[in-house]
Amino acid sequence: MTQPTDPVALTAELVRCPSVTPTEGGALRLLETRLAAAGFTCQRVDRGGVANLFARWGAHGHPDTFGFNGHTDVVPAGDTAAWTHDPFGAAQQGGWLWGRGAVDMKSGVAAFVAAAIDFVSETPPDGAIVLTITGDEEGDAIDGTTALLDWMADQGERMSVCLVGEPTSRDTLGDMMKIGRRGSITAYFTAHGVQGHAAYPHAAQNPIPALARLVERLSAYPLDEGTRHFDPSTLAVTTFDTGNPANNVIPGICRATVNIRFNEVHTADSLTEWLRAEADKVTDETGIRFDMDTRVSGESFLTPPGALSDMVARAVEAETGRHPAMSTSGGTSDARFVKDHCPVVEFGLVGRTMHQVDERVEIAQIDTLKRIYARILADYFG
Amino acid sequence: MTQPTDPVALTAELVRCPSVTPTEGGALRLLETRLAAAGFTCQRVDRGGVANLFARWGAHGHPDTFGFNGHTDVVPAGDTAAWTHDPFGAAQQGGWLWGRGAVDMKSGVAAFVAAAIDFVSETPPDGAIVLTITGDEEGDAIDGTTALLDWMADQGERMSVCLVGEPTSRDTLGDMMKIGRRGSITAYFTAHGVQGHAAYPHAAQNPIPALARLVERLSAYPLDEGTRHFDPSTLAVTTFDTGNPANNVIPGICRATVNIRFNEVHTADSLTEWLRAEADKVTDETGIRFDMDTRVSGESFLTPPGALSDMVARAVEAETGRHPAMSTSGGTSDARFVKDHCPVVEFGLVGRTMHQVDERVEIAQIDTLKRIYARILADYFG
Ligand SMILES: [Zn+2]
Ligand SMILES: [Zn+2]
Repeated sequence: MTQPTDPVALTAELVRCPSVTPTEGGALRLLETRLAAAGFTCQRVDRGGVANLFARWGAHGHPDTFGFNGHTDVVPAGDTAAWTHDPFGAAQQGGWLWGRGAVDMKSGVAAFVAAAIDFVSETPPDGAIVLTITGDEEGDAIDGTTALLDWMADQGERMSVCLVGEPTSRDTLGDMMKIGRRGSITAYFTAHGVQGHAAYPHAAQNPIPALARLVERLSAYPLDEGTRHFDPSTLAVTTFDTGNPANNVIPGICRATVNIRFNEVHTADSLTEWLRAEADKVTDETGIRFDMDTRVSGESFLTPPGALSDMVARAVEAETGRHPAMSTSGGTSDARFVKDHCPVVEFGLVGRTMHQVDERVEIAQIDTLKRIYARILADYFG
Repeated sequence: MTQPTDPVALTAELVRCPSVTPTEGGALRLLETRLAAAGFTCQRVDRGGVANLFARWGAHGHPDTFGFNGHTDVVPAGDTAAWTHDPFGAAQQGGWLWGRGAVDMKSGVAAFVAAAIDFVSETPPDGAIVLTITGDEEGDAIDGTTALLDWMADQGERMSVCLVGEPTSRDTLGDMMKIGRRGSITAYFTAHGVQGHAAYPHAAQNPIPALARLVERLSAYPLDEGTRHFDPSTLAVTTFDTGNPANNVIPGICRATVNIRFNEVHTADSLTEWLRAEADKVTDETGIRFDMDTRVSGESFLTPPGALSDMVARAVEAETGRHPAMSTSGGTSDARFVKDHCPVVEFGLVGRTMHQVDERVEIAQIDTLKRIYARILADYFG
């Protein structure tokens, strides 16, 4: 047997790759080299300036294919001067490893890559392991995991189940996993009135009070009360803009953006219909016409508690002594794309410092995370 | 007797002075030369980069002092290429004279200057004529007529009554004069919430729905139903801005501006108090705090129909056959400053093309306007 793969060293190497979305930064090249050397079939699936890596050990299309999904791209370092250590230096101090991506999610990727390499070398399973690793999770995500999954479908590649290695723990490693996520839809409203002079408001039609009425009404509307597995859906007006510098002019146009995080009670279509109907009501009341564009980041998804989540929970409990809560809270993740292909859950580190200055990971937890992932593989193929 | 002063030639000379606020452009210098030559005591009262002209014929502080007020500054020409003739060329064609300021209000100034010069030379009155002409009516108006009036008070200079030569006619010369104006106050609201992530709205405090509620409520409030001489007061929300480009972020701050044109039912103070109270109500309801700044452009004013307006109306009727409506409509004018010193009314040309491309004046009406102003002087001193 060869030397086991050190997930901490691999995390450090990945952190040193400056892979700010959409830059590959050497991160996927590094993983491709390691995985190919361990017998994985690797294929770069690059699309529209984004790099993605597909890697498979075992037979093409095997009915027992365990999938891991993750990303090597990171958000910008922000105020570099405010960092205690170089955000791309992977400095270790007091049991912590510093760097952009240290928790979100180069350590998660390092942990599942190390676990998979060691697993196939120590106990080659009767089955397959597929890793899908994207360089565009933090950006538009159009050419990332979606592109990888489309390519896989074209090639007849598959995953039977998938574990996304995003940071999901809340306070302590192991206290939470995700079995679903709320969906997200953004609506862009443009209200059209008639410009005029502030001294003659009757000759104008001010779109601001009408748009104000609409967004206030939407904000006050109780979308639902939550479900067994989901928090209530929430709506946030994220911006309202006019850009009229002249206080003697009534503007002709103003705009607002509304973002909805929604659970299984709704779909992007049902919400689009509701938003349009509410806007039409305000048009009936005020005469102000609304254009509405929508962008759907993802539908909600739920992998109901069952075989996959139980398997993950068992491994977490064995290594940490904690039974993970099965949550659907938080923002979106690429699991929203994977769920169209196979059952998917998410488990990873404590995310507290992600996207912040001094993002850092407790070194010991990278080893624990690798052991959890290894235990899940052993369970799945056992 | 010398040759009568030609108000059309004087208008053309003034139009050729490029006196876009706050540039003097030679306009006041030209008037000073003409008035001094006619025996007027002239004094430039320049303040903060703005030029103003005071001119008096007759004794200092005479109890019978007739005042004229006007401005030589103009708004920018805008899209010069869209003009039929050079906006500073004073081209004459088909009975019209083209140019920025042709109606607002170089022709008005030319008409009262010509009338005053000829009047004192033909029939020197037992009394005084004071002309106050500013170079800052279209701008902030801080260093314009206000500064002139302050300087006059310091010097013991006075006007017994004042006629402002702004364009006040609506469709035909003589159909309308102004005996008052509504006041104008602008309130700038800043709503303070707590920034956060759109996926966790309960950890944030979104200021947008609260500000939306406030401006919608203010817009819907009936301020009054008008009075005998005034239209109802009106309120316009002129802008609402956030400037948050991230649709996954709930903003911490947003702003709105509200402009109120108000009649004698209100004062700037009473409205400030009302706005503050309405904002406080929304704070009680939502927890969102509002900062409010106000800028008062002017209180409302009314010179009730009487001796001064009757005198103007008689002159208008004699020269045009029309009895002018006594209106208080429209935007603000420098009469809002003059009213603190003496009774003031306004009469002038049809303003339809003011501030527009191809601003132009019917040449014959400049002569008529001069005759009206001359008739008023004769009546006043008769
Ligand atoms: Zn991530
Ligand atoms: Zn004017």
